[in-house]
Amino acid sequence: MRLSRYFLPILKENPADAQIVSHRLMLRAGMIKQSSAGIYSWLPLGFKVLRKIENIVHEEQQRAGHIPMLMPTLQSADLWRKSGRYDAYGPEMLRIKDRHDREMLYGPTNEELITDMVANFVGSYKSLPLTLYHIQWKFRDEVRPRFGVMRGREFLMKDGYNFDLTKEDALHAYNRHLVTYLRTYERMGLQAIPMRADSGPIGGDYTHEFLVLADTGESEVFYDSEITDLSFGDRAIDFDDKVACQSVMEEFTSRYARTDETHDEATFNEVPEERRRVARGIEVGQIFYFGTEYSEKMGAMVQNEEGQRVPLHMGSHGIGVSRLLGAIIEASHDDNGIIWPEGVTPFHCGIVNLKQGDEEADGACDALYDSLTALGFDPLYDDRKERAGGKFATMDLIGLPWRITVGPRGLKNGVVEVTSRRTGESEEMSPEQAIAKIAAIYEGL
Amino acid sequence: MRLSRYFLPILKENPADAQIVSHRLMLRAGMIKQSSAGIYSWLPLGFKVLRKIENIVHEEQQRAGHIPMLMPTLQSADLWRKSGRYDAYGPEMLRIKDRHDREMLYGPTNEELITDMVANFVGSYKSLPLTLYHIQWKFRDEVRPRFGVMRGREFLMKDGYNFDLTKEDALHAYNRHLVTYLRTYERMGLQAIPMRADSGPIGGDYTHEFLVLADTGESEVFYDSEITDLSFGDRAIDFDDKVACQSVMEEFTSRYARTDETHDEATFNEVPEERRRVARGIEVGQIFYFGTEYSEKMGAMVQNEEGQRVPLHMGSHGIGVSRLLGAIIEASHDDNGIIWPEGVTPFHCGIVNLKQGDEEADGACDALYDSLTALGFDPLYDDRKERAGGKFATMDLIGLPWRITVGPRGLKNGVVEVTSRRTGESEEMSPEQAIAKIAAIYEGL
Repeated sequence: MRLSRYFLPILKENPADAQIVSHRLMLRAGMIKQSSAGIYSWLPLGFKVLRKIENIVHEEQQRAGHIPMLMPTLQSADLWRKSGRYDAYGPEMLRIKDRHDREMLYGPTNEELITDMVANFVGSYKSLPLTLYHIQWKFRDEVRPRFGVMRGREFLMKDGYNFDLTKEDALHAYNRHLVTYLRTYERMGLQAIPMRADSGPIGGDYTHEFLVLADTGESEVFYDSEITDLSFGDRAIDFDDKVACQSVMEEFTSRYARTDETHDEATFNEVPEERRRVARGIEVGQIFYFGTEYSEKMGAMVQNEEGQRVPLHMGSHGIGVSRLLGAIIEASHDDNGIIWPEGVTPFHCGIVNLKQGDEEADGACDALYDSLTALGFDPLYDDRKERAGGKFATMDLIGLPWRITVGPRGLKNGVVEVTSRRTGESEEMSPEQAIAKIAAIYEGL
Repeated sequence: MRLSRYFLPILKENPADAQIVSHRLMLRAGMIKQSSAGIYSWLPLGFKVLRKIENIVHEEQQRAGHIPMLMPTLQSADLWRKSGRYDAYGPEMLRIKDRHDREMLYGPTNEELITDMVANFVGSYKSLPLTLYHIQWKFRDEVRPRFGVMRGREFLMKDGYNFDLTKEDALHAYNRHLVTYLRTYERMGLQAIPMRADSGPIGGDYTHEFLVLADTGESEVFYDSEITDLSFGDRAIDFDDKVACQSVMEEFTSRYARTDETHDEATFNEVPEERRRVARGIEVGQIFYFGTEYSEKMGAMVQNEEGQRVPLHMGSHGIGVSRLLGAIIEASHDDNGIIWPEGVTPFHCGIVNLKQGDEEADGACDALYDSLTALGFDPLYDDRKERAGGKFATMDLIGLPWRITVGPRGLKNGVVEVTSRRTGESEEMSPEQAIAKIAAIYEGL
């Protein structure tokens, strides 16, 4: 993309109403614009990152055999009466009446709708195991929406639901989700720690939240520092292998790691003192096993091998897709702006032309741009007639992890400059080497 | 995908409430399930086609230089008061009050929101031309929703908006959209004819609707039969070239083609009698140029080259993404089910194992499946223990354009059978040739 043809409405001033750094940077970098309280338009740059995150979530869910579908945003109130949650849910549920005065709501989650659907279609254990998921906009009418997309009212979430014959199968689904989540967050450059959580209004005994450590996090967290040494990495795993998934689950959840909701001082004190950490975290996902509660209420029964009708064992598993943009920025920025991890960067690299209008510099930039594009990369070429300082500031603010700087002086020696946004280190090399370097960085991502 | 691990809830019986063939087939093929009146869940197969259509729309819009973003589903009523449409829009607008009693609505379209946003960010002609678009769920509270996704209440639409300094530039944007739409529909295997249309509540003098001919169409259409000989094909076009875009527009709109809303009997009678056609059509898109109406109301002004503040010239351009599934099926099916065009098929081909459990047949199917998958194709392998007749009926119903049938008898002679869903013709060939054939069919798609 050539910046002269893009829509990147950068703000020069710090917006007064933004209290946390990710909100401030997303506004300043032209990623979002508030349209009403807690409701945002995703400007082109923000939308691009949102799609990347969404794609990673899709890929990792499907790798584990989970099946994508899409449920609507609006739901009938009747379904929620069946589960008893229509009245239980407070004013955070956005209730709507249509032209025929039928009661509806903007879905804050989808347990009722999907359980009703599965009850309708699935009658036998032969159709199991089954895990369906979707990525859809949800609404939660927060009293005081704030922190930008971190606590918005209209937000994008992946929610997945497993349907199994037995508790054992459903716990395998639970573990499988835990593994996919570890992979998902790591691909986004995040360390998200599974912590024992409170099951809240969804119910159930088994639940873990995934938290990204960040000073601005909304939750206080308590953990054994050993846990931050763990990484899933690029292990191959067979998602059908119950033992393998269980053992990953144990590896990542056996150490003490809890939010303030489940924190237990006595147990924490059993952790050697030098490893006890108290910090803040941002919740980016949660997994639940809640047994047969919803299937019983919604009538989701199947015949088992003995011909008896039994309720399905279920769990639900969420990733806060739109909120992840905020979490990534909270975890990865500096005074000059955002620093995107390579896995989610909106453009693979920036190209800065130091002397727009200079025939040689323009030609070298065009050639770089064309070569990178032909290789399947998506560079952002700042081809505006602006001073070098302004171009650098823009690139730093929007946070592309790599920048190639092209100017007449370097070209005389046959070199361009490749700069890492994270370290600030620059290296001179030929344009061909620069292309090879970018290609090597993104190999396998 | 192995069918034994997929979720494809096929209906054996014709659903009683579905009046038109696409609705019936989408329900029977397990693509959608109604969750409340005019609101559908997209089951895995339906979601897969929806995403393919969405991706084609994205690719073709971006090819023309239009920039993707995403606006929210819920909007503030205040914006619509500014344009005067809050009161003008009837009961089809779903009006909502949030917990603070603020008036909101579920957006049926986005002229107000985007114009307000552009007014906020764009101050100079130097930022123009600019075309932004999004693909987002919309809501229209139809009195009697029907025909499945063809006239649902919650529906997915691509809507794009151009912002230009002059009428001439805006008409170029209009023509550019017409060209992208021709390409878009052809990639989906559809012939969509641009017809002179009525501008309705959006206003403006220039507007064309795109209609797909189908007996079940909601509109009566009148056209010169020469128009159905036209095709855009794989022409290369420079979308910046005003003359080239204008000439495509003239080529495709100079002949008589109108819906009943704009039909003029006298003009129609000037078409030679043997070329006059009266038929029915399904609307799948519409383009508008409406000048400065919205920009004046919403205050979207820019400085021109002379330093004067002038209102932006605008147009809006829509494609009915979810409704397209219905339109494609109406245009492409037979008594046995759907016939997907290759451009949008949910799976590239089906693999039918005639003797599940037979070592040789299972091995040959696995090998075919793995080879096709390794080449980047997405086959659906019916690996269920079912009779051949049932497997064929399922494949015909869900409409994959190509089927590879594998059985012990053929394998003895080293062959499998490749069958075209459209023609019903079968050809025997080696598994390697079958793979090469599938690869050749999808080359360049």
